[in-house]
Amino acid sequence: MDAVTEDTITDLAVSRWGTAKDPRTGEILTALVRHLHDFAREVRLTEAEWMAAVQWLTATGQISDDKREEFILASDVLGLSMLVVQMNHDLDAAATPATVLGPFHIDGSPELGFGGDMSQGLPGTPLYVHGKVRSLDGSPVGGAVLDVWQADSDGAYEAQLPVDEARLRAKYTSRADGSYCLRTIAPLGYAIPMDGPVGELISQTAISHYRPAHVHFLLAVPGFEPLITHLFQDGAQYLDSDVVFGTKPELVVAFDERGPGPTPDGGRSDVPWLEARYDFVLQPG
Amino acid sequence: MDAVTEDTITDLAVSRWGTAKDPRTGEILTALVRHLHDFAREVRLTEAEWMAAVQWLTATGQISDDKREEFILASDVLGLSMLVVQMNHDLDAAATPATVLGPFHIDGSPELGFGGDMSQGLPGTPLYVHGKVRSLDGSPVGGAVLDVWQADSDGAYEAQLPVDEARLRAKYTSRADGSYCLRTIAPLGYAIPMDGPVGELISQTAISHYRPAHVHFLLAVPGFEPLITHLFQDGAQYLDSDVVFGTKPELVVAFDERGPGPTPDGGRSDVPWLEARYDFVLQPG
Ligand SMILES: [Fe+2]
Ligand SMILES: [Fe+2]
Repeated sequence: MDAVTEDTITDLAVSRWGTAKDPRTGEILTALVRHLHDFAREVRLTEAEWMAAVQWLTATGQISDDKREEFILASDVLGLSMLVVQMNHDLDAAATPATVLGPFHIDGSPELGFGGDMSQGLPGTPLYVHGKVRSLDGSPVGGAVLDVWQADSDGAYEAQLPVDEARLRAKYTSRADGSYCLRTIAPLGYAIPMDGPVGELISQTAISHYRPAHVHFLLAVPGFEPLITHLFQDGAQYLDSDVVFGTKPELVVAFDERGPGPTPDGGRSDVPWLEARYDFVLQPG
Repeated sequence: MDAVTEDTITDLAVSRWGTAKDPRTGEILTALVRHLHDFAREVRLTEAEWMAAVQWLTATGQISDDKREEFILASDVLGLSMLVVQMNHDLDAAATPATVLGPFHIDGSPELGFGGDMSQGLPGTPLYVHGKVRSLDGSPVGGAVLDVWQADSDGAYEAQLPVDEARLRAKYTSRADGSYCLRTIAPLGYAIPMDGPVGELISQTAISHYRPAHVHFLLAVPGFEPLITHLFQDGAQYLDSDVVFGTKPELVVAFDERGPGPTPDGGRSDVPWLEARYDFVLQPG
């Protein structure tokens, strides 16, 4: 019989999980065992703390559903999501950098034309985001689908609301010259959901639980590295303290104030509106 | 704005979680961030693997309920539970050693008298476990409550079955001379639940998913270190490969075969039965 002690159990567990049939699975699980044990030994984890962790993990799974991903949120606020993004998107400095997906993306958004309005009458200041999709060498990328989503003026995403129709999300396709144009309302900074286990943990610290105003983009274009990113409003509150570590200077864009008049889609606005110009630069891959 | 890179994000996250109001909480959360990030960096975790981990954690929480603790099971098979037990129960070598609680303990078991039968007519070979509860110095410990639970002859615990009444669990109290005696049926080795996320992970390896035959004991006696332990049947299958790392040589006890005749509770058995003698030695604390 193996003599299980504080000093021998890690090697024993590593030798067992190392029997995984798939080498990569074995690599991940044995590393997980080592780091998990090292963590417990370093902090001298008590049984009460261990039980609190079990209960926290269980509650985090149980509050999750098809509209709420509490483990993604946990990963986000611990900096793990952004670390994984950084490791997996080592892009050219001239390419648009990636940031976190976040827990609120919904598949299958409706397709809108050039300048189409994804805010459908929701209150807020009109915002036009437009520019080009380009390759690293400057050539235009036509036919690129931009999957866009954002929070409403209360900071709520469709995934958090009991709605049946697509709300503040849409897909736009770049034209042959790479140009795209979307019409929405100005996003606001928002608090992450604080009514679950992640919020309970954050509230035990001085961590700001807000995100600066942003619009999410996902560009999966054949022939290029997939890009998941945000555009942040220049000057927005919380740019320096984004709770999910998602801000990058390259992704901060001016939202310029415009008076009533012509808009970038060729139409016109009867009310003041905001204009954000941004060229997405994709890395071939 | 902080420049978030693979190399800077860990320090940034540590500085944030270090703001926890309670110093111990800060110690644990900052250590968690460091080890979690080190793990992800070491294995170069991909986004698909990260998403698989999120989904595994969510499923593990969601399959848990008041009768199933899948995160405790996960902790058990990763060796974390036994490591925490070892760190928190650094007992005298002469004291009865601790082992894992496991996911199947139920509070509030019925109280039975000396020799009382906790198997209540379930099929199996009668087993009497008896001996004394003693202190390290040999003095008897009377009034000690032994909270006992075990699996049935199919390897199922009450917590896994749709039953309304207490089943194979009871509390016994030691007499003034420290003696205790319980009557049950012989336990069998059993497989951990393999129909959930933990089983799905184990089935990707060559790890044996069985536990050797055992009876669980919990002794919370005022004036002594609390003791959570098992007694294992000497010669049982899987003693060398306990999937939760719970076996210890000191906890392996002979289950001697006896013919019909007098039993340790002062009664008699008409059928062959098994006798296990064990003295629990508690450490003052
Ligand atoms: Fe967002
Ligand atoms: Fe058990």
